[in-house]
Amino acid sequence: MKKIYIIGLGLIGGSFARDLRRHMPKTRLFGIDTSEQHLQEALALVLVDEVATVGDLSDADMVVLAVPVDTAVQILPTVLDNIDDNTIVVDMGSTKQAICEAVVSHPKRRNFLACHPIAGTEFSGPNAAIDQLFKGKTNIVCEVEKTAPKLQETVLNLFKEMGMRIRYMDPISHDKHIAYVSHLSHISAFMLGKTVIEKEKNERDIFDMAGSGFASTVRLAKSNPVTWTSIFKQNKTNVLETLEEYISNLTHFKTLLEAENYQGIHDEMKNTNHIKEILNGIN
Amino acid sequence: MKKIYIIGLGLIGGSFARDLRRHMPKTRLFGIDTSEQHLQEALALVLVDEVATVGDLSDADMVVLAVPVDTAVQILPTVLDNIDDNTIVVDMGSTKQAICEAVVSHPKRRNFLACHPIAGTEFSGPNAAIDQLFKGKTNIVCEVEKTAPKLQETVLNLFKEMGMRIRYMDPISHDKHIAYVSHLSHISAFMLGKTVIEKEKNERDIFDMAGSGFASTVRLAKSNPVTWTSIFKQNKTNVLETLEEYISNLTHFKTLLEAENYQGIHDEMKNTNHIKEILNGIN
Repeated sequence: MKKIYIIGLGLIGGSFARDLRRHMPKTRLFGIDTSEQHLQEALALVLVDEVATVGDLSDADMVVLAVPVDTAVQILPTVLDNIDDNTIVVDMGSTKQAICEAVVSHPKRRNFLACHPIAGTEFSGPNAAIDQLFKGKTNIVCEVEKTAPKLQETVLNLFKEMGMRIRYMDPISHDKHIAYVSHLSHISAFMLGKTVIEKEKNERDIFDMAGSGFASTVRLAKSNPVTWTSIFKQNKTNVLETLEEYISNLTHFKTLLEAENYQGIHDEMKNTNHIKEILNGIN
Repeated sequence: MKKIYIIGLGLIGGSFARDLRRHMPKTRLFGIDTSEQHLQEALALVLVDEVATVGDLSDADMVVLAVPVDTAVQILPTVLDNIDDNTIVVDMGSTKQAICEAVVSHPKRRNFLACHPIAGTEFSGPNAAIDQLFKGKTNIVCEVEKTAPKLQETVLNLFKEMGMRIRYMDPISHDKHIAYVSHLSHISAFMLGKTVIEKEKNERDIFDMAGSGFASTVRLAKSNPVTWTSIFKQNKTNVLETLEEYISNLTHFKTLLEAENYQGIHDEMKNTNHIKEILNGIN
């Protein structure tokens, strides 16, 4: 591939650019972003070689869409309108149903591969981009059968070279399950952070008392609000379901504590302890 | 100090023993535990030199109480009954009000220093003990004025040699604040783990989709149920208050999402983002 365009030069797009530099040193990288500051940072970091616009995509071999998920849904049809027959377009979004629906009847549907690399940190912007972010991570690919075999092959090989494991899933199942194992964690962390900040705002030294356990549990509350608002918007129904169940479990725990049912509290925790084995497989 | 007795040879007691080996290589260490298995493990790991009982404490220079907090409250009076006038007894418990009240009128109150080193991991037992667990950690000391100055001086110097920062606080404030910055995090993690496990129990491969964010948020759900039941029991009132506020914040978030108030959701997250600066001070 001679020319790759990256739309969205944040943590994900920027980290993908870093890996492209490693695996495709001869490829020319073009950056598209609505933020002039991000474009300048990306150039300064040499994440990309040139700034471009969506109108330039006709000579792209590959286009990587790494913008907030609601923006991705809006611009993907236009991106497909602008590419050549042999261009492959991949997205990196945390929701998959809406984006697949947005292009279901597009004449260039076969040029698009819907992806979700389960990779990220709590930081954002071009400066947050890191090398080998995707190494050892799972990349969930949806509706692979709708992408032209030759085009998908090239990009799946690239993902594997970057160290990703590929899994295939339909977009509806993806959005349902990711709500539990990713989206709910973010709400849990944000609201934990809020609860503690609200309570302790007049007592500046209290965070001296916080240890590594609090830091770990609340870490995701550092995440980008724009990115996450758009994820919750697109996955509203599933996220609401997880949130209802989470609140219900917390309320049950509270009821046990009010009733001083300490055996019940012990058993709740004991039964959840086998998360140990589940987590052993996660980096 | 020639002889130090450690009651409770789990993560905290065992890690303290490891640090004592480093800083006081000539001191003989005695272990007391209700678990025969833990005693044998502690001997095999050379955490302690000998097994002992509470009846042996009369020749102790120092006694370290590192058992679940409800056990600590029960046995501390007996421990004090059995020691010499020059023995210092310290506890390591995550709650401080009940233990201070339990010995408020004890004739040997001056021999006790109420401590809470904010240190730990999600693991437990003698095998979980690690070197330098306490290095760089905060140790909250309560009612320091009730401990004989000469006795407290020795042990506070030891804590400083182990790398701990000492902070002084009254037990009521300690229990109130620690509920927010530690106890609530554990409930949040346990119930997140429960919610996801319940939903995904029939779908074995779903945890392939979980990334480092989920792992971080749910990490504390690996913690010991016995330890934590006793903490929630002793700090019931404060924990219930934090839990009510947490549930209320989650419910508010859910209401915003149901109403599709995405600006409101964005602002909730944006306002919590400054947890970044707060966490910068935490290891």
